[in-house]
Amino acid sequence: MKYCSECGKKVSISIPEGDNRPRHICSSCNTIHYQNPKMVVGCLVEHENKILLCKRAIEPRYGLWTLPAGFMENDETTMQAAARETIEEAGADVEITQLFTMFSLPHIDQVYMLYRAKFKEVAFAAGSESLEVSLFAESEIPWDEIAFPVITESLKRFFVDKKAGQFQIHNGAMFKQINNEKITFDVAVLNDH
Amino acid sequence: MKYCSECGKKVSISIPEGDNRPRHICSSCNTIHYQNPKMVVGCLVEHENKILLCKRAIEPRYGLWTLPAGFMENDETTMQAAARETIEEAGADVEITQLFTMFSLPHIDQVYMLYRAKFKEVAFAAGSESLEVSLFAESEIPWDEIAFPVITESLKRFFVDKKAGQFQIHNGAMFKQINNEKITFDVAVLNDH
Repeated sequence: MKYCSECGKKVSISIPEGDNRPRHICSSCNTIHYQNPKMVVGCLVEHENKILLCKRAIEPRYGLWTLPAGFMENDETTMQAAARETIEEAGADVEITQLFTMFSLPHIDQVYMLYRAKFKEVAFAAGSESLEVSLFAESEIPWDEIAFPVITESLKRFFVDKKAGQFQIHNGAMFKQINNEKITFDVAVLNDH
Repeated sequence: MKYCSECGKKVSISIPEGDNRPRHICSSCNTIHYQNPKMVVGCLVEHENKILLCKRAIEPRYGLWTLPAGFMENDETTMQAAARETIEEAGADVEITQLFTMFSLPHIDQVYMLYRAKFKEVAFAAGSESLEVSLFAESEIPWDEIAFPVITESLKRFFVDKKAGQFQIHNGAMFKQINNEKITFDVAVLNDH
């Protein structure tokens, strides 16, 4: 952010009175421009022990597989956002059944939220942001070609819970670590035993 | 939003190619400015069957009671945000124990998330945004002086679960209704029985 979205003049960065964080503040009209994390919301659609994955037709991670998910929009609920993204990316009309994972990703200022869902009718097709959409059993999942670590983590937890016969709600965070140029993630989850 | 935060020129509203929603787009540098919901995160701090409430020292709802909660910041997790807000507004250092409610409030583009928490040590004091902070038993809660409907809804669900001896995670939405100038909220929650 370089200019004020209210008056078009330059912004500078300083800590407003009564605040404790640097903000973008307009030097002309004094508007404070707050920046906050965004929610990415989507679905784990299950059908006959298989999960619906989409092969990405867009960057980042073109050609890799992910769950249908995307940025929550204004004027909708998290459940509506998850169902909308599943229609848009996977051509699947679903019923949301339960919150499954909610991971904060502080290194990219996102909160990633995935719901369990089932087809209203069994139909799916690649949307404009997908090259291909398909159902995968656990043994068929292309683990080395998953687009994002939060998706791998959520899929793993899904199959663990499925075997245990009980689905938890997994709420936590993934912290990016870089050691010797190798990227890993520390996962911390409330109530994980 | 009237001006581009990247180049300072005027923005106009139109639907970008490949999108399906009107966005603010810069007429000069073509940057698309997305606007997304914000998360408000806080704590239900319980101690000896009482809940910690803060009397607001700021608008909106100056002088009314609420739970310690506020906008999640970049570069933090939802749990860190909830604990930070509880320190800032209620002077209480807490341990987060469980997600309790997550309500979408689409009429104000917010997702409101409250965690159950307990004191690390029993100490609290009004922060700069609070006039007063106090512990209330259910029978003492000033139900007619609660600042926000989502707080009333969350407190009611807390005491119902407490009596039942089991805390659920309540994920849903509150939809604002206006009938004959009277404002009410329709509440829809996943897995509510």
